[in-house]
Amino acid sequence: MDALTRYLEQQQDRFVTDLMGALRIPSVSTDPARKDDCRRCAEHFAGELKRVGMTRAEVVPTNGHPVVYAEWLGAPGKPTVLLYGHYDVQPPEPLELWKTPPFEPELRDGKLFARGAVDDKGQVYMHVNAIDAHMQVNGKLPVNVKLVIEGEEECGSDNLEGFLNDRRNELGADVIVVSDTAMLGPDQPALTYSLRGILYTQIDVQGPGHDLHSGHFGGAVQNPANALAAIIAALKDGDGRITVPGFYEHVRPLSPAERESLKSVPFDERGFMAESGAPAAAGERGYTTLERISARPTLDVNGIWGGYQGAGAKTVLPAKAHAKVSMRLVADQDPADLFPKFEAYVKRVAPPGVTVEVHDLHSCRPFLSDPAHPMLESARRALARAWPKPPAMIREGGSIPVMATFQQVFNLPSIMMGFGLDDDNVHAPNEKISLSSYHGGTRSVAYLYEELAQAK
Amino acid sequence: MDALTRYLEQQQDRFVTDLMGALRIPSVSTDPARKDDCRRCAEHFAGELKRVGMTRAEVVPTNGHPVVYAEWLGAPGKPTVLLYGHYDVQPPEPLELWKTPPFEPELRDGKLFARGAVDDKGQVYMHVNAIDAHMQVNGKLPVNVKLVIEGEEECGSDNLEGFLNDRRNELGADVIVVSDTAMLGPDQPALTYSLRGILYTQIDVQGPGHDLHSGHFGGAVQNPANALAAIIAALKDGDGRITVPGFYEHVRPLSPAERESLKSVPFDERGFMAESGAPAAAGERGYTTLERISARPTLDVNGIWGGYQGAGAKTVLPAKAHAKVSMRLVADQDPADLFPKFEAYVKRVAPPGVTVEVHDLHSCRPFLSDPAHPMLESARRALARAWPKPPAMIREGGSIPVMATFQQVFNLPSIMMGFGLDDDNVHAPNEKISLSSYHGGTRSVAYLYEELAQAK
Repeated sequence: MDALTRYLEQQQDRFVTDLMGALRIPSVSTDPARKDDCRRCAEHFAGELKRVGMTRAEVVPTNGHPVVYAEWLGAPGKPTVLLYGHYDVQPPEPLELWKTPPFEPELRDGKLFARGAVDDKGQVYMHVNAIDAHMQVNGKLPVNVKLVIEGEEECGSDNLEGFLNDRRNELGADVIVVSDTAMLGPDQPALTYSLRGILYTQIDVQGPGHDLHSGHFGGAVQNPANALAAIIAALKDGDGRITVPGFYEHVRPLSPAERESLKSVPFDERGFMAESGAPAAAGERGYTTLERISARPTLDVNGIWGGYQGAGAKTVLPAKAHAKVSMRLVADQDPADLFPKFEAYVKRVAPPGVTVEVHDLHSCRPFLSDPAHPMLESARRALARAWPKPPAMIREGGSIPVMATFQQVFNLPSIMMGFGLDDDNVHAPNEKISLSSYHGGTRSVAYLYEELAQAK
Repeated sequence: MDALTRYLEQQQDRFVTDLMGALRIPSVSTDPARKDDCRRCAEHFAGELKRVGMTRAEVVPTNGHPVVYAEWLGAPGKPTVLLYGHYDVQPPEPLELWKTPPFEPELRDGKLFARGAVDDKGQVYMHVNAIDAHMQVNGKLPVNVKLVIEGEEECGSDNLEGFLNDRRNELGADVIVVSDTAMLGPDQPALTYSLRGILYTQIDVQGPGHDLHSGHFGGAVQNPANALAAIIAALKDGDGRITVPGFYEHVRPLSPAERESLKSVPFDERGFMAESGAPAAAGERGYTTLERISARPTLDVNGIWGGYQGAGAKTVLPAKAHAKVSMRLVADQDPADLFPKFEAYVKRVAPPGVTVEVHDLHSCRPFLSDPAHPMLESARRALARAWPKPPAMIREGGSIPVMATFQQVFNLPSIMMGFGLDDDNVHAPNEKISLSSYHGGTRSVAYLYEELAQAK
């Protein structure tokens, strides 16, 4: 066992104590009453980064909550790593469902329970710990490190892009490392090399000028809820393919090699379907469940409403009907390119007798990096050293908007190396981090710095 | 001018005063706090019917609000008329929208404003007045009269069928007269010879066992809101025809003669469409707007809901989606026959991967009488005497469940002769009856008794 690994083992209890200190600060970014707590949390992280040896660590004001920026640039000729994490947390409500208070961290059965334990304070602390270890054991880091810890990830990252653009030159790096994703299982590390993008829209259908009596008017005017159903039904064909013209035009096809590689991912399909509670799998013909949820675009109604929703019968012919319809996108689809195509198609398939509006509520580009890139190879080696099983290379079906922001501002290779587990209760009561993940993650990050030093 | 008509003219002011007395009683049948007021109103009507000369007038208890029953059977050899009306009213809320309090009747510009003015106390008083006039002028009525005035029309008529069945023999008659419908305009009387029935259902679609994250699960499971849209879209074809197998099997075709007759109805299609506020007419191909709203069956979504309905974007893949879907029916469709056909079809067209339940929330048979029946001829003659224009023979698109109840219990010819106007604010604030309708209706009813005496 090398000196670094030994140090990491010896300091495990202290690493937990250090993390608990950060978890006691209720840095709920969406709650205006927690503004001072967010600032206090930023200062706490800056102090910790100074403590472990970063040469510079500052709390940078923004129009919202501040960003923590820290750097150590003492490895000339070595790659520079830009690390991203966030110190803000989701609201803890409903409080009555927590077994112990969300901001009083408690250890139970090898798990540390607190809001932010895994999302994302615990994962940021893996870097704090790894920096500490390298400094204590070697007096230096193997690579140059720049750390950006934002305070608005849970409320839209409104000020991150401005911060990154302002400091574009100062933040120059060779690779971006983000620790905010998950493993496939307690002993199965994973590297996420792809995220889906999203185009989230709202369709508003207006029929009559006001709600009508369905007996007096039924049959003579188009019903906006029927029209909306016809529109939504027309968005997919019988094979589960999206019918918007041009929708698949820029989809990068899955290569036979990648499909083969996805087959070897230890994905527990039976467990996944059981977790969904759906009576059967259903999706795009010709693709596996894993491909459908990670490597293929989809279209889902996220909400639909119009007319009477109460008990019993009300004979109203509603004036309006609405749906939130979102599409998950894959490389190289561009939501800015797709929105007008979607809007035009929705209007084209709408039955006569209604007016239709389509709104772009939110969008984010997909993210795809080359799993064979040397930087990802370094990450793979680091994980292979830290865990008993080699890492799975996975595509994630969700979207992480900051990845698109980073790619847009810096266009750098990106490593998403995270250590969450499915049962961590992220965004829910009783959030936790397993100590095995916490310490394995710290080890992985410490090794990652070493492996990245060899990458160039 | 004959003596009867002269009396009716002379007594107009008193007829208004009498009606105001009934309108002061807040007989809101849905409000448990108004139970005593409903009873008081029933007693008031029984008293009024005694006053004008009915030989019997009683308040009959039911499991809900009482029924007023009155009779005069002094015309042996003449037809017996069973009159139906209701003394209960809709709740007056929202009170702040009333110009004058709902139970303090006020005359303004030839209109009497109060809750119940036209629905239905004013129309019941037309019969009270007509009976009074015949009694005062001739000392008798031209026909035998039985009067049923219920107190639960605005809350479902739960106890009416039981009352009618209990007194089936006692209530024997030759014709039923219902005064609870409308005219086509202030000087355009109308006889309604057809009502649509209804089959009102709820479709519940269950996909996943609980709400899912659309990024993690989107693409792999059937979305219940998408599935519901597909179901609803499959219920009609491009010609606006309902696709449920067997749906049109028992629809009595419109005869060329009736289509011709409907063409002559003074139906203001432009005004109707303007009132709807819809951008264009839309409906079943091959039929006019008037036919579509009165003589053809329809299918409308009355409400639809599922998933996220708030502002902005929430990436939920909902567990459930629901719709209330109702069909207006025409003779000789039977909701009891159609429901299982509808349910089977909905389940058949549902995409795989969801479970679907269909519930029958409410139904009522359509009503159609022969416009050439001698009893309707009598009504037509009565209206022609009372108004400057001859009556229009119309089909009404809505449903009046008590008509189906009467038809079921007695199977008699029925006359729907009503005097409401489109701007009467039925079920809304500032309900009114125009005095011209009130007095014209009273005249019409008085003449109707005379004409019916000749019918047999």
